[in-house]
Amino acid sequence: MSNNGFGFQLLAEDGAARRGVITTAHGEIRTPAFMPVGTAATVKAMLPEQVRGTGADIVLANTYHLMLRPGAERIGRLGGLHRFMNWPHPILTDSGGFQVMSLAGLRTLSEEGVAFRSHIDGAAHMLTPERSIEIQHLLDADITMAFDECTPFPATFEEAERSMALSMRWAERSKAAFRPRPGYALFGIVQGSVYPSLRALSAARLVEIGFDGYAIGGLAVGEGQETMFSMLDTTVPHLPKDRPRYLMGVGKPADIVGAVLRGIDMFDCVIPTRSGRNAQAFTWEGTLNLRNARHADDSAQLDPDSDCPASRDYARAYLHHLIKSGEILGAMLLTWHNVAFYQALMERLRQAIAEGCLQNVASALLARWQEKSDITSA
Amino acid sequence: MSNNGFGFQLLAEDGAARRGVITTAHGEIRTPAFMPVGTAATVKAMLPEQVRGTGADIVLANTYHLMLRPGAERIGRLGGLHRFMNWPHPILTDSGGFQVMSLAGLRTLSEEGVAFRSHIDGAAHMLTPERSIEIQHLLDADITMAFDECTPFPATFEEAERSMALSMRWAERSKAAFRPRPGYALFGIVQGSVYPSLRALSAARLVEIGFDGYAIGGLAVGEGQETMFSMLDTTVPHLPKDRPRYLMGVGKPADIVGAVLRGIDMFDCVIPTRSGRNAQAFTWEGTLNLRNARHADDSAQLDPDSDCPASRDYARAYLHHLIKSGEILGAMLLTWHNVAFYQALMERLRQAIAEGCLQNVASALLARWQEKSDITSA
Repeated sequence: MSNNGFGFQLLAEDGAARRGVITTAHGEIRTPAFMPVGTAATVKAMLPEQVRGTGADIVLANTYHLMLRPGAERIGRLGGLHRFMNWPHPILTDSGGFQVMSLAGLRTLSEEGVAFRSHIDGAAHMLTPERSIEIQHLLDADITMAFDECTPFPATFEEAERSMALSMRWAERSKAAFRPRPGYALFGIVQGSVYPSLRALSAARLVEIGFDGYAIGGLAVGEGQETMFSMLDTTVPHLPKDRPRYLMGVGKPADIVGAVLRGIDMFDCVIPTRSGRNAQAFTWEGTLNLRNARHADDSAQLDPDSDCPASRDYARAYLHHLIKSGEILGAMLLTWHNVAFYQALMERLRQAIAEGCLQNVASALLARWQEKSDITSA
Repeated sequence: MSNNGFGFQLLAEDGAARRGVITTAHGEIRTPAFMPVGTAATVKAMLPEQVRGTGADIVLANTYHLMLRPGAERIGRLGGLHRFMNWPHPILTDSGGFQVMSLAGLRTLSEEGVAFRSHIDGAAHMLTPERSIEIQHLLDADITMAFDECTPFPATFEEAERSMALSMRWAERSKAAFRPRPGYALFGIVQGSVYPSLRALSAARLVEIGFDGYAIGGLAVGEGQETMFSMLDTTVPHLPKDRPRYLMGVGKPADIVGAVLRGIDMFDCVIPTRSGRNAQAFTWEGTLNLRNARHADDSAQLDPDSDCPASRDYARAYLHHLIKSGEILGAMLLTWHNVAFYQALMERLRQAIAEGCLQNVASALLARWQEKSDITSA
């Protein structure tokens, strides 16, 4: 372990893929890890004990949302985010950089940071690297993310270069603002759009500054899976082997499998939770839309072999009925199932790495999902 | 036990109040009992294991809703309502009589039954005593309710008399249509609006027909608590002591306390669940509206001494935040808390009856709720 209690231990390698464990102030994270997204201090439609029960070691929460409502100082006064949301395990917070550009009104980007208006009540706010780090400190995040600009896609080389350079200056200011504490970590974020040279430059600069982990940002924004994988192939070799690597905002199961094959250790994405509220279920046989009438009389469960009650104890016909009836329980059960499926997928990938057979396992999974793509609906 | 496996055992009496246990095909029901309402085969925003965990022995489901969606025959094919909704414990179904008059379109009431159009898709349907009993059989309800007309309020004596007489003829047809099975029961429903003589006549007629339990219907429809209690005082003495008595659609905690004092054994009401989706929490100190800004910084739980995680593990400030943010978890936690509170209230009343101190316990509860009424909001 490095950094007085925060650390990353590599347990096994299989090609570029790695299995490991991250140690934090609030517990360990088995990698490759999927972090369910708890935007507003709740993984939507799930109880924290359910989230934990699926095998999730860590959740992500959003600085932008929480600074606006209920407010970072308020959460600080109430004892921090772990106590607030009743999740005594590791938490990673994003920096607010992504949402401030996608959600806020009247944004003004400057060297200093981003001035904006709340999408909730129009109130004026300012996010800077220093304020972002302070908010994440108030939230008591185990893993704090450097404040960056998520470069829009598409971007010209010049736009991507300017944006990445700004993010690197903000990364330096984030590092200076971060107060090291035992078990707490600060991650830098590689930018550079789809330009390998910029990605390499960004990674090198972050390593110079020095972070406890390295994220790859600015992907999964419309560039497509092939380009995303190509950027991983380009970027990962520039990141230190002894620090965790986090691919932000990814993704569908097949994206995750491909990224793990390329050496990524951490993921977050709203897909399992958002899909769960939208009648979609991820399964080992592909994606199902439970709203579809063909499920109305189907007595089969989503996954009778699962440990997750949502996957095991309810007929698809019942889930279909709940969705058609607009019942909250439909969102609850499908979200639970999907988060459990994602965690089961990560466990399968971790096992495969430990056994040195990741390529075979990955190929089998991808082929099965491909083959069944004719029955999927999105 | 009577009726081949269904039975009611009286364990203790305290004034008019009774403590007992009902035996059914799917398990025992401790009385006085509160039945959470699972309208569309789900107690809204709760998992069945959570409902059970609060101490609920039985839930209620709605014939009207389930016959329209997903359909009684479908639930029958899928193995019945217990399996469909993953609730292997007792279930009571209403007859559809109440909802068909309050929700359906283009109703035509005749001696035969009620012709109506679905409020969901406009399809034509007919509910008769025979069809209602058949649907409840398909659902596999442990306790089937006779098909009745819930007399609208207010009603003249003549209207109430005509309506009650029709319900009594339908009760007889319901009895004839019901297929007795071990552990399954049929309850009759006393009508008669606010007229003691009609209530007495209705009760006497039902006892002549002979049912496994007796419900009091047509109350909690706007007549006020005082009139409702007066109707209980009038009606209960006409019901056999050795059968359970069920007050339909009641109520707020104070209504339940008053009705238990008057000899009622069973209750159902949407108040705890509906209130939970509407930011209201029932507590031993009165009702709270968690949407109120005064809860924004309140680190106190709803009930730190409760066994229910929703009551014990979350600050009111967090619940306030979830509600303000429109998060599903807000509805989930407040519903869970409210159902747990109702079950804790029933347990407290059962204990008080066993100890012969119900009047004292009831007075103390009612005084506390009354005293705190200045802080309640509805």
